[in-house]
Amino acid sequence: MSASGRTAGGPVDLAAWLEDTARWSDRALEAALADLEGSPPRLAEAIRYALLGPGKRLRPALVRMMAAQFAPSGEGDAAASLSAAAVECVHAYSLVHDDLPCMDDDDLRRGRPTCHKVYGEALAILAGDALLTLAFEVLATHPAGDALAARRADAVAIVARASGHAGMVGGQIADLEAEGSPSTRESLGWIHRHKTGALFSAAAELGALHGGASAAERLAMARFGHALGLAFQVQDDVLDRTADAASLGKTPGKDERSGKATYPALLGLEAARAEAKRLAEAAAAEIPEGARVRDRLLDFTRSVVDRSR
Amino acid sequence: MSASGRTAGGPVDLAAWLEDTARWSDRALEAALADLEGSPPRLAEAIRYALLGPGKRLRPALVRMMAAQFAPSGEGDAAASLSAAAVECVHAYSLVHDDLPCMDDDDLRRGRPTCHKVYGEALAILAGDALLTLAFEVLATHPAGDALAARRADAVAIVARASGHAGMVGGQIADLEAEGSPSTRESLGWIHRHKTGALFSAAAELGALHGGASAAERLAMARFGHALGLAFQVQDDVLDRTADAASLGKTPGKDERSGKATYPALLGLEAARAEAKRLAEAAAAEIPEGARVRDRLLDFTRSVVDRSR
Repeated sequence: MSASGRTAGGPVDLAAWLEDTARWSDRALEAALADLEGSPPRLAEAIRYALLGPGKRLRPALVRMMAAQFAPSGEGDAAASLSAAAVECVHAYSLVHDDLPCMDDDDLRRGRPTCHKVYGEALAILAGDALLTLAFEVLATHPAGDALAARRADAVAIVARASGHAGMVGGQIADLEAEGSPSTRESLGWIHRHKTGALFSAAAELGALHGGASAAERLAMARFGHALGLAFQVQDDVLDRTADAASLGKTPGKDERSGKATYPALLGLEAARAEAKRLAEAAAAEIPEGARVRDRLLDFTRSVVDRSR
Repeated sequence: MSASGRTAGGPVDLAAWLEDTARWSDRALEAALADLEGSPPRLAEAIRYALLGPGKRLRPALVRMMAAQFAPSGEGDAAASLSAAAVECVHAYSLVHDDLPCMDDDDLRRGRPTCHKVYGEALAILAGDALLTLAFEVLATHPAGDALAARRADAVAIVARASGHAGMVGGQIADLEAEGSPSTRESLGWIHRHKTGALFSAAAELGALHGGASAAERLAMARFGHALGLAFQVQDDVLDRTADAASLGKTPGKDERSGKATYPALLGLEAARAEAKRLAEAAAAEIPEGARVRDRLLDFTRSVVDRSR
């Protein structure tokens, strides 16, 4: 604890905490994959490749922060880490399917060849299917015990709503359909809310749920996660235009070339950067004054729009 | 009720009951799809196309029979019908993904062009993803109420285990990998257990769960469903060789041409028919003597191997 009484302050602390969180969530991912051994070896390999590559693990970090916000011991909680792993499974599945030739046709992801480039399309589709299914299995079985069954069922419902036709899948369709056609701020906003905001929102709500938050607190945290996801996505669009492949880990300029709607294309680069900041401020405004991990949440929110990769 | 005191007897009764059950599960499917309206219209259309086409609805029938076995009023129960709908969503998703060009490359399904033939590959993959996700949302939210939360969480876990890497997805990978290579009864049995047995087993267990069965009863019914699924799959292989497209609703002879392992290819047609009957008898042996819907279960089991489409 620093002299000011802050339990977590400044970007240096945040960077160390994020590194620790990546290890925390990777341990949970290994635990979630523990019974892969009985499955066909190539499937297990493709699942591990898609899931365990280098990644920012921002969604697990969001789950962890929220659990810590509502339960002092929440950071170490097995249910929080496993639900963080489940959200990362959903995220990894969405990347694998989105990268397919018939969708965004990407060759590079997290600095490595995409899953279908290494394992072929059939295995990539099925590895994605298995990851999505595994996420729900993990959410439905942790934490154990009848007393926490409502929490397990709620966790599944939260993630399913955020991921399906009314969430991420709907957003991906709208994104594909918008390719090459003129877009508006409204249509682009719809895509971002569904494709990115929904799962960030679910991650935040999941952490709050496992931290024991009330229904009202859960909703407030879901709003925070949603706004943060939108800020993240606008900054992603900015980086797609300004960063190189080495720092980005994926092919830059891809969205623009395929005629995808992005904020920089719609508003220009500077206005897009301003929009990302505005959204980050909207997220910050959702954090209650007396929040236990307020400083970390504020640092995290800033880091999402200040990042260069 | 007939003079013999049987509540359901004979194949005529069964046919009428199956027709009624198809309507019962289609009403539940419509209820599950009720909030599709906010989603992109083409996605909603592809989902409805994949899900609501003509189909035998055998898995929903299994859920319904099991619910009725353990709860006299179970047949009309909303939770049973919605969980039957969820299992059908999982089945429909698996057909859409399996039919893709990079997998089994099928043009015809349930007597109509396959989903990707009508909507393209991207939309077919995403419609499948949405159907799988919807299944878990439905299972996690019905029946409502804290008292039944453990049932909801268990339902999600049962279906996730049966559908993922250790179940259906694992079976589909093994099936694809076996193409063109010599197979054994062991390897073919593994594929059938995972690709078909697992979801039939889950359907039976789900019905028992929502009927209020004990853990031991649930396991016995899961074994019945599993054996029934294997019998169904062997008969499917037989029909793939003997039936025509019109009665089958899909391209016959496809498995053999693509070098897929099947029982008729391995054992010959007559031995495969005998194997289907043997498996149906193994399923029948799992039905307790005093079972409330014993006659219907026996008729249903027979009908699975006597069918011609």
